Order: sequence, then C-alpha cells, then structure tokens
Amino acid sequence: MKPLTVRTDWTVPFHDIDPMEVCWHGNYVRYFELARTTLLQSIDYDYPQMRASGYAWPVIELFIRYAQPLMYQQRLHLDARLIEWEHRLKIAYEIRDAITQKRLTHGHTVQVAVDIRNHEMCFVSPVILREKLKAYL
Amino acid sequence: MKPLTVRTDWTVPFHDIDPMEVCWHGNYVRYFELARTTLLQSIDYDYPQMRASGYAWPVIELFIRYAQPLMYQQRLHLDARLIEWEHRLKIAYEIRDAITQKRLTHGHTVQVAVDIRNHEMCFVSPVILREKLKAYL
Amino acid sequence: MKPLTVRTDWTVPFHDIDPMEVCWHGNYVRYFELARTTLLQSIDYDYPQMRASGYAWPVIELFIRYAQPLMYQQRLHLDARLIEWEHRLKIAYEIRDAITQKRLTHGHTVQVAVDIRNHEMCFVSPVILREKLKAYL
Amino acid sequence: MKPLTVRTDWTVPFHDIDPMEVCWHGNYVRYFELARTTLLQSIDYDYPQMRASGYAWPVIELFIRYAQPLMYQQRLHLDARLIEWEHRLKIAYEIRDAITQKRLTHGHTVQVAVDIRNHEMCFVSPVILREKLKAYL
Repeated sequence: MKPLTVRTDWTVPFHDIDPMEVCWHGNYVRYFELARTTLLQSIDYDYPQMRASGYAWPVIELFIRYAQPLMYQQRLHLDARLIEWEHRLKIAYEIRDAITQKRLTHGHTVQVAVDIRNHEMCFVSPVILREKLKAYL
Repeated sequence: MKPLTVRTDWTVPFHDIDPMEVCWHGNYVRYFELARTTLLQSIDYDYPQMRASGYAWPVIELFIRYAQPLMYQQRLHLDARLIEWEHRLKIAYEIRDAITQKRLTHGHTVQVAVDIRNHEMCFVSPVILREKLKAYL
Repeated sequence: MKPLTVRTDWTVPFHDIDPMEVCWHGNYVRYFELARTTLLQSIDYDYPQMRASGYAWPVIELFIRYAQPLMYQQRLHLDARLIEWEHRLKIAYEIRDAITQKRLTHGHTVQVAVDIRNHEMCFVSPVILREKLKAYL
Repeated sequence: MKPLTVRTDWTVPFHDIDPMEVCWHGNYVRYFELARTTLLQSIDYDYPQMRASGYAWPVIELFIRYAQPLMYQQRLHLDARLIEWEHRLKIAYEIRDAITQKRLTHGHTVQVAVDIRNHEMCFVSPVILREKLKAYL
C-alpha cells in the first residue's frame, strides 16, 4: 500500500484564540476533523457515504501532542495520513507552519464501524471500506 | 497525599449534538476543562491565580477514550483527579452517567508551567503549585 | 396569559473567553439556547417533543444587543420569556449578573414551525404548541 | 465612497451540523467573523492593528436573518460590506450558495471603538479608522 496522505490549508481565526493569545487547545479537534474530511473525501467515503453504506464511524480515541502554540492568522498545513484500516480506522495528524514547515502538533484518532441498524460495533472493517481503499492497497 | 478528586455536574446541551444524534467528540474537551476548572478552583489555583503567579500552564497533551456516546440532555458527572504535579500537572478525567454511575468516557491532560516573562518551560513545577497543594500532600 | 418566563444559572467558562479577556460575542448564542431549552422544557415541548410532534422549529431570526461584557467565571442569570406563539415562536432573552442583577445583554430569537414530512413552513403555529401552552393562556 | 465589499470562500464542516442535519444557527456568527476579518484585513485594520492603535472594537449588536438552511459541505460565499464608519463600524453580511449565488442568509454587526487605556467608548470613530479607509472615501 502506498501511504494515503492528504493536506488541508488552514488559517487560525480570531474566535479560536484564547486569553493567552494562542489557539485554545480544544479547537485542534476541529482542525483534525477538517484534515480527516479531506482524506475521507479523497477515497469517496466521507460522512454521507458512510451513512449511505449503513455504518457510522464514531471516534473512539483521540490523542493530541501540542508542541508549539498556534497563533492568530498563522497559516497552517493540516496533514492526515491513514495508518490502520483493517479492524479500525486510525488516522495520524500533523499540523505544520505553512511557511517554515515546522511541525507544531501531532496526534491521532481511532474510529470503528458501527452497524446503523443494530448499533453493534464491527470488529473487522466492512467490505465497503476496503473497496474504497482498493486504489491504495 | 490523599487523592484530590472533584466532581462537576453537567447536562448535554443541544448545540453539542451532531447529526448522528450523539455529543460530537470534540465537545468533550470543553467538558474536561469544566472539570479541571473545578479542581483548580478547589486548590485556589485556577487561570487567574496562575497568571498572577507569573505562569501560564498550557495543555501539552490530551487523551480521550470514548466508550459510550453521550446523549442530548443526559445528566453527567465530570470527575477530575490530580495524578501528577511535581514536574507537570497531569489530570485524569472520567465522565459518568449521573444516574447509573456507568463510566462513559475517560482521558487525561498534561500541562506544564511556562514562565510568562521569558516563555520558558519549567522542568520542575513552580513552588506556588506545591504551596497550593500543601493541604493534600 | 400570564407571562412565561424562566431563569437558568450559568457561569462563564474559560473556553468562552477571547483575547480581549471577555466572553466572545458568538458564545451568547449558546447561552440563549440554554435559556430557551429551559423554557421549552417547562412546557414539555423541547427538541425531542418537537420532533416527535412532526415539526422542526428552526431559528429564522436572531438579535443580540451587547451592553456590558461578560467576564471569566462571572455568574449569570439567563432569562427567557415567551412573547409570541400564534404564528411563530418569539422568545426574548436577558442576561443579568447573578449578584447585582444588572442587565448585561438582551436579545431575541424567532422560530417557525416546519412540517418535517414536506419541509413546508407553517404560517400558523401547529395545534400541539397551543396545547402545550394551555396552562399559560 | 466606493462601496467596500469583500468575499470569503467557505465550506460547511461536519462539526457545524446539528441533529436536524443543517448548520446550527450559532455557527453563523463565526462565518460572519471570517467575512469581517477579510474585510478588515483589506484595509489593514484587523484585530492586531486595532489593538496596536489603542482601541478595542467590541461587537455591540448582532442581527441574523436565516432564509435558507446551510448544508454539510455546501460551498458558500461569505460577503461583507462596510456600511457605517463615522461613529461606529457597521458591517452587513450575506451568505450565498457559491454555485447558484442564491442568498441564504443576511445580517449585520455593529462595533464601537473603546479606548483600551480607560475602557471608555468613543462616540466618534478614531482618526486611525478614517485613515485606513482613505482609499475608499
């Protein structure tokens, strides 16, 4: 499998800045989601396609390591990389300064498929995900 | 040291619910912060006291494990427990259903002291934190 | 009709504070919603009951007048008052300091009933709302 | 004065969608702010320049009229237009579908200059704003 990595551009808005004049740490979850959406759209399996396929994919784990603060109007690259897909969907994230390319944040999320009809968690990723990933395997 | 644990009551509001009709996973960071604020206020070392003492305490690590979804208007207990303080401030969180006491989420944050004057990270927690914790040591 | 007015207690959390060290103006929409939820629950016609009754009630108009800033950990009273219900649901809001009772903010929202089946807007409020309001008419 | 109008592109993210599967109405305040930031940057008088000039410009009034819902991943144009500047800063907003150009939302904000040193509101806009606007007057 060639690695599946995508990049999203982002600029830190005013409403994300806290009284210490840096991006409030909880806002990074939205930034990770923007990156994840770009990645999932690249394999045509974003939220609407997930739902149409009969599966919800709730996030069951989140990890963020904040190395450097993000500042108002800082231009960023939000990078998402698929690292597990057989039993669960694990995506790694890096936030980089768009100019210096310095890595400012890294982290990951884990999602699992849940059958929408019976709310049961799938211990193996459904066939639909493998099909969507075929071009990358 | 007797364990320093505090409880905050919370009810999931409408604006935290996502299209899958559960609390969107990024909102838990706010819930953790509500719990952390209660804990830090209990030792008289919340954000304004931190700032007055010359230190910022940015979150440098966040971990969340989502075991069960949180539903609209579900009444919750947000529990925060201090588990490290000598070199960094590590707080563990549990979100429980207020009625059944079932644990729905757990996680932690790590904060480090940063000297506001020179923006340098402290590798040992400043004396002020130990003083605030004296009653618990 | 006796006026239908309810009060919700609230304390301004850290994540709502902006770099000017006051509550960011967009967060007031959440505060209004907390107040509205309390009001709608008092007549047993909150979001789940609305949905079960076959109607969505989207907000079609929002007005906020910010008279005084809200500060970190300020204790507030969020007051909601029903002022129109025959053709649309108009609710007025006041945010007061919990101690001084000084009014800091006022505003309103307007919602209209939309039939969930055909997405058509109702130009008269559905019977269910009048029934829920019977005790107050 | 030639009208000062700017356009910002935006796509509705997942975390802005509510259980009715439309953009939650409070998120529009962030969209307006994105549009306002673009406008204020175009005259070199965004938040950092405001602060450096000795003035805060709190929003004292917000109005939003929601005509049509915004959907997940809908591409939008956020348009901001300066309509008053002599005594206060009044900006009008329109949200349009990027493809059809249909207007989905309109509204406005009013901001006033507050002297950062004494927290007093200015009843006439400070000279710095007129200078920034010179090219447009």
